[in-house]
Amino acid sequence: METTFELGYALDTFYFLICGALVMWMAAGFAMLEAGLVRAKNTTEILTKNIALFAIACTMYMICGYGIMYGGDDWSLFLSGIVSDGATDVAEDPATYAPSADFFFQVVFVATAMSIVSGAVAERMKLWAFLTFSVVMTGFIYPMEGAWTWGGVSVFGMYTLGDLGFSDFAGSGIVHMAGAAAALAGVLVLGARKGKYTADGKVNAIPGANLPLATLGTFILWMGWFGFNGGSVLATATVESANAVAVVFMNTNAAAAGGCIAALIVARIMFGKADLTMALNGALAGLVAITAEPSTPTPLTATLFGALGGVLVVFSIVTLDKLKIDDPVGAISVHGVVGLLGLILVPFTNDGSSMSGQLIGALTIFVWVFVTSLVAWLIIKAIIGVRVSEEEEFEGVDISECGLEAYPDFTSGR
Amino acid sequence: METTFELGYALDTFYFLICGALVMWMAAGFAMLEAGLVRAKNTTEILTKNIALFAIACTMYMICGYGIMYGGDDWSLFLSGIVSDGATDVAEDPATYAPSADFFFQVVFVATAMSIVSGAVAERMKLWAFLTFSVVMTGFIYPMEGAWTWGGVSVFGMYTLGDLGFSDFAGSGIVHMAGAAAALAGVLVLGARKGKYTADGKVNAIPGANLPLATLGTFILWMGWFGFNGGSVLATATVESANAVAVVFMNTNAAAAGGCIAALIVARIMFGKADLTMALNGALAGLVAITAEPSTPTPLTATLFGALGGVLVVFSIVTLDKLKIDDPVGAISVHGVVGLLGLILVPFTNDGSSMSGQLIGALTIFVWVFVTSLVAWLIIKAIIGVRVSEEEEFEGVDISECGLEAYPDFTSGR
Amino acid sequence: METTFELGYALDTFYFLICGALVMWMAAGFAMLEAGLVRAKNTTEILTKNIALFAIACTMYMICGYGIMYGGDDWSLFLSGIVSDGATDVAEDPATYAPSADFFFQVVFVATAMSIVSGAVAERMKLWAFLTFSVVMTGFIYPMEGAWTWGGVSVFGMYTLGDLGFSDFAGSGIVHMAGAAAALAGVLVLGARKGKYTADGKVNAIPGANLPLATLGTFILWMGWFGFNGGSVLATATVESANAVAVVFMNTNAAAAGGCIAALIVARIMFGKADLTMALNGALAGLVAITAEPSTPTPLTATLFGALGGVLVVFSIVTLDKLKIDDPVGAISVHGVVGLLGLILVPFTNDGSSMSGQLIGALTIFVWVFVTSLVAWLIIKAIIGVRVSEEEEFEGVDISECGLEAYPDFTSGR
Repeated sequence: METTFELGYALDTFYFLICGALVMWMAAGFAMLEAGLVRAKNTTEILTKNIALFAIACTMYMICGYGIMYGGDDWSLFLSGIVSDGATDVAEDPATYAPSADFFFQVVFVATAMSIVSGAVAERMKLWAFLTFSVVMTGFIYPMEGAWTWGGVSVFGMYTLGDLGFSDFAGSGIVHMAGAAAALAGVLVLGARKGKYTADGKVNAIPGANLPLATLGTFILWMGWFGFNGGSVLATATVESANAVAVVFMNTNAAAAGGCIAALIVARIMFGKADLTMALNGALAGLVAITAEPSTPTPLTATLFGALGGVLVVFSIVTLDKLKIDDPVGAISVHGVVGLLGLILVPFTNDGSSMSGQLIGALTIFVWVFVTSLVAWLIIKAIIGVRVSEEEEFEGVDISECGLEAYPDFTSGR
Repeated sequence: METTFELGYALDTFYFLICGALVMWMAAGFAMLEAGLVRAKNTTEILTKNIALFAIACTMYMICGYGIMYGGDDWSLFLSGIVSDGATDVAEDPATYAPSADFFFQVVFVATAMSIVSGAVAERMKLWAFLTFSVVMTGFIYPMEGAWTWGGVSVFGMYTLGDLGFSDFAGSGIVHMAGAAAALAGVLVLGARKGKYTADGKVNAIPGANLPLATLGTFILWMGWFGFNGGSVLATATVESANAVAVVFMNTNAAAAGGCIAALIVARIMFGKADLTMALNGALAGLVAITAEPSTPTPLTATLFGALGGVLVVFSIVTLDKLKIDDPVGAISVHGVVGLLGLILVPFTNDGSSMSGQLIGALTIFVWVFVTSLVAWLIIKAIIGVRVSEEEEFEGVDISECGLEAYPDFTSGR
Repeated sequence: METTFELGYALDTFYFLICGALVMWMAAGFAMLEAGLVRAKNTTEILTKNIALFAIACTMYMICGYGIMYGGDDWSLFLSGIVSDGATDVAEDPATYAPSADFFFQVVFVATAMSIVSGAVAERMKLWAFLTFSVVMTGFIYPMEGAWTWGGVSVFGMYTLGDLGFSDFAGSGIVHMAGAAAALAGVLVLGARKGKYTADGKVNAIPGANLPLATLGTFILWMGWFGFNGGSVLATATVESANAVAVVFMNTNAAAAGGCIAALIVARIMFGKADLTMALNGALAGLVAITAEPSTPTPLTATLFGALGGVLVVFSIVTLDKLKIDDPVGAISVHGVVGLLGLILVPFTNDGSSMSGQLIGALTIFVWVFVTSLVAWLIIKAIIGVRVSEEEEFEGVDISECGLEAYPDFTSGR
């Protein structure tokens, strides 16, 4: 008969796996969100990027990312995935749940970070340039900052973020802002889509081709986020941890609701219409805002934090457009600007964190990811180029990059 | 080391949370189903309604709905959500699972009830009128009847439904028929879509724009229903409760299958074609029919109960059209008429219920929700109006209400 | 208070149910994948087939399939579903989890096998011919070979596959190759779509109408496969079984990633483009390849096995087209050819299996399913016909079979 230890081990393992499956599901959410928000002529390519980046992220993280992030100072784990079943050796110490379950849960996080990038650089970046970057991002850039935060390793031996009071429960900064920082670097190297900004300073709206898909993507992300935040409690087989997981589920939902309502109202006031894309981005902003600390706020506070994210995201999207930073899906605003907000909100409900720690942590993550990404993008640009030709952009990248239209049976207007 | 109490607490909590996440996922199901069954020109608006109503439901239920429904006679819990972390205080007594998990599971139910309304009033109702109604429905109307049923409170001090032998396992009446009653009131206030019924009594079919979406929505609802019914066992950490949850999963699936097949065959006989929308509504009808009691029938009986729902829904949809009650997605038939069937079927397999109790309960729920909804719709009509102008309806509400087409790259012929 | 036995029973039951719900979700994946890969004019019909086949599979497996497959030599269980609550009696012996949970998990597998068929015969088969075949397949053909493999019954009293060293963990052969064998028989009886192959030996590409749907379907299948393979450990409430489930989740994900990357690269080399449909089929091929043994490889090996599947599927699709075997979605290649690969790979990492056992098992499954399916298809052809008329095929089967267009608001080109 099973002992209580065995049952706790089994329950925690199952909990990790189900939460991990929910996070994996977020990959579908990003794919649908982005496919819905680009034009019909660029849809096949964004879909290809999304499924390929997920596959690359899983493979690179197995080969070296997980070893870098959780191997501590033991660099022999660097190539752990190749040298044997090493990917799972790393976590074998705690042994209160299956090591493979820990790997599975972690590996879907890195894919999330990378998914954020694809939306921001959509409709004009070369597919193979993007995939090359995803190798670097998921195999090296993300694991390094992951090691400094969740991995507990000091930043180049200089300072340790945990000691400074940095706390990022499920990754508002470590995952979301990091993805946005890489995206921002890519967008700056890449430039805006043709026709987005006219010489006289006008911003042209380029509406997405399929809003049901974008809405579906948002619902998928909302659902997957229960795994993202809920799994980050890292245990559930005790009364205390079970309560924590339940609070996290409740607050994650509340923040998304608050963000959606707030963005809908703000957009109504600013634009005079019930702007669906703002409502969607508002819900996502609410989720990002609560991700840094979903376990300590009351549900009402979580709703308000989410609402703050929802308000901020509308202004951020408008502001980035004024700065001519062209982000077709609003990823930099949702994940970057609101990710920073999430980090800053932590000390208001979590005594174990400090505002200075949060700011130093945010700065560390941003500088590291932005600078290394910028270098990577520039190298890729120099070698294979990052941007499709003007003709290809005009005709749509689906034909030139993938040789397949996404909706061949329908009249594609633009 | 964990005790068996702790492990049971953790398992029951995790079970509630996963079932709740599945019910939350039903919101995506309703959104896709309805977006697929309306015309292209009204798609953005129905998507906006669906995500916004979910957000509103979650917020209103936290602020006051949960307190009304489960606070018993202690009205101090009315504003529990605001006064502190009160939303979760309510359930703290039993303490065999996390209180927040109970709240999370309950909150997604109220959203389901509200989702039913949006389909029935689609393509002609003002967005903000609808959202205003959703505040009243999720914050007051639903919680009141919920208190009389699952909450165990007497109906205005007059009679207690439980004592009369009323039983509604997962809410054929409390959730589905209630949603349909509110929808019916709305449709009566609103009137039919222009062109649906001609002066000479002809019924014009207005086909949905995107049947893959409608099918996806049905599959999502089918999947989410495992959480809806399965979670309503309210425990899983004993042999008895685990067996009950397993039977509920099996029967829920069987009823959906029976409903789908029956509706497909009936529609084949009546219309001479394999009518996909009837097959979808048949599956949903099967699910609604079994929801009042999925734990006592054998799987074969569950299949037959589902088939009964599938047959009934086809005739109900045809009948409502003859009565010129215009319900674009068939929500009143699926959730209302078949919801009532579900309640009536309970005494055939569950000895603890009585037919009189079921009928009194059904009447109580219907009268309460229909009358209060009617009042609410009429007040909203008087103050801000409920129906868009004829021009807006002709051009599609997407442009007038949301300022965004759902499929701008495609020829929208309507 | 619960005993550890009760808790283990409850956890294993819950695990089966959640894995089963994930496998049920695969039905939506197949529906979306196939709806995305056919032309707009044949979309309603493929959706109808997909939801109806799932309903039929669930009902037939309850009535007789489960009894045939797991009733051993006790044929009184043949009609077990009808004669009482028999469907669940079968599994009552082990009693370490709820019998209904076992039935629920098994019933969604049979639907998966049947889903494979619908894609291969798409765009030209009569709907009711297909549904008739699905009754035979799910009620008899699949349960028979299931009895010889997972059911442990000898093949017509001649030999017992388990004794010969046959091992198929989650069904690369039993489910996937079996579905493909039935599909192949159907395609041979049916013939190719008009215009697919021209007299001079040219193969015309017939692109799918909705690639976002096809991508969504692939992501759904990827997610659902965690339940498919993970649930096939058949227990999770001990340290050993929990570790096994975790390894299975990790390897399933790794193989899908490997298959996706490999197919993308091979297609890039062969066709010069990043072919999204090949990337999708590559991911699915990776999943099929690992399904026969996901518990013994290291994650790197799993990635390589998946990649092998991804490479093979590209060549198989090209080869089948050369042989004029017209499979609109590539189902025979993905599930049949790669299913065989999966069986062959087992002995490389699992000592308990033998290559001869794998080959004899594969041959047994293929011959049985192919021959009986061929007979069934020919009988159906003789009685009601299997193929729509040339006019119906040209106009699209949606109108003739279902009386409903899938996208009536959009210009449908072909």
